[in-house]
Amino acid sequence: MNKKIILASASPRRRELLKTIGLEFTVIPSSVEEDIEHKPFSYKLIEDLALQKVLDVKDKISFPAVIIGSDTVVVIDNRVLGKPKDSNDAFNMLKLLSGRVHRVISAIAVHDNQTQKTVKTSVTSEVSFREIRDDEIRDYIKTAEPADKAGAYAIQGKAAIFVKGINGCYSNIVGISVYKTAEILAEFGVKVL
Amino acid sequence: MNKKIILASASPRRRELLKTIGLEFTVIPSSVEEDIEHKPFSYKLIEDLALQKVLDVKDKISFPAVIIGSDTVVVIDNRVLGKPKDSNDAFNMLKLLSGRVHRVISAIAVHDNQTQKTVKTSVTSEVSFREIRDDEIRDYIKTAEPADKAGAYAIQGKAAIFVKGINGCYSNIVGISVYKTAEILAEFGVKVL
Repeated sequence: MNKKIILASASPRRRELLKTIGLEFTVIPSSVEEDIEHKPFSYKLIEDLALQKVLDVKDKISFPAVIIGSDTVVVIDNRVLGKPKDSNDAFNMLKLLSGRVHRVISAIAVHDNQTQKTVKTSVTSEVSFREIRDDEIRDYIKTAEPADKAGAYAIQGKAAIFVKGINGCYSNIVGISVYKTAEILAEFGVKVL
Repeated sequence: MNKKIILASASPRRRELLKTIGLEFTVIPSSVEEDIEHKPFSYKLIEDLALQKVLDVKDKISFPAVIIGSDTVVVIDNRVLGKPKDSNDAFNMLKLLSGRVHRVISAIAVHDNQTQKTVKTSVTSEVSFREIRDDEIRDYIKTAEPADKAGAYAIQGKAAIFVKGINGCYSNIVGISVYKTAEILAEFGVKVL
């Protein structure tokens, strides 16, 4: 019998990903504000943010649980791209990604509120975009997909036609590496398969 | 207004993938038998098989259409792994993939029955598996996921916890590269976005 698992994230993508590997969990979103744009990228920055989400949810519950927190950023030229503020912002982000390779980094933090064991880490994947014409960017923005996505695109959606290839973990680009999550959960005595 | 698109494949994975990029199409499965196992791998072999599927469906219809055919194989040590015959076969395939890198190759053939234009090509992705313990392989086979999958695994399912990373197009591993399909369809005057 596995311990109770809590996902400290409101992201429907992360929920879907963790469901595909058969993990049973409850979603309790954290109230932590994600304000890491315009800061130079560092792994510590996003891993700490993932852990903050976990600790925020830890304070909200009073039962034994293993809590998973995560945060995803798109990084290009050492700059963090968060969610676009408007269509103009989305256009500029996609223009910046066009024809180039960027990194997607998702941090994972896991904490057991009984043993106090904590693990935090992050996974990096590279994504290679083909050249995207301005009219394609505009058509893509019309699909509304970019609105709530870091870097203004969804690789699991229509933006797949821009992605020549990736190097690394795919689910990490969507929102959380299910490979790494399963590996960490094993350290907490949680069996996935 | 796009031409009528036909997908000459019964694969629910390919259908889902092409839906994610917003393509509108009708499924008419081909009656071509896939018997390419135990043959040494060649790109020509699977590209010809994808084209055979297209031409088979071409003979079944009497309206103007652009027909898409595809075939996916898992290749390791220049050997083609098809769908496993039984649990034992699935075990042997997963044991062979454990801790190693293999290739997944999906061929795409597209034909316009009005202009007679034909394109066939294939896309290669590399998949890196971690070491998988025998008890994990047995637990994975119990999920029934391996049964109808080339190489006895579904990267979009629970096997994601075995996949350290990929190099190349992700949808190509699931069943058809949506990137390459969109690129080819553009040559046929079919706009995806």
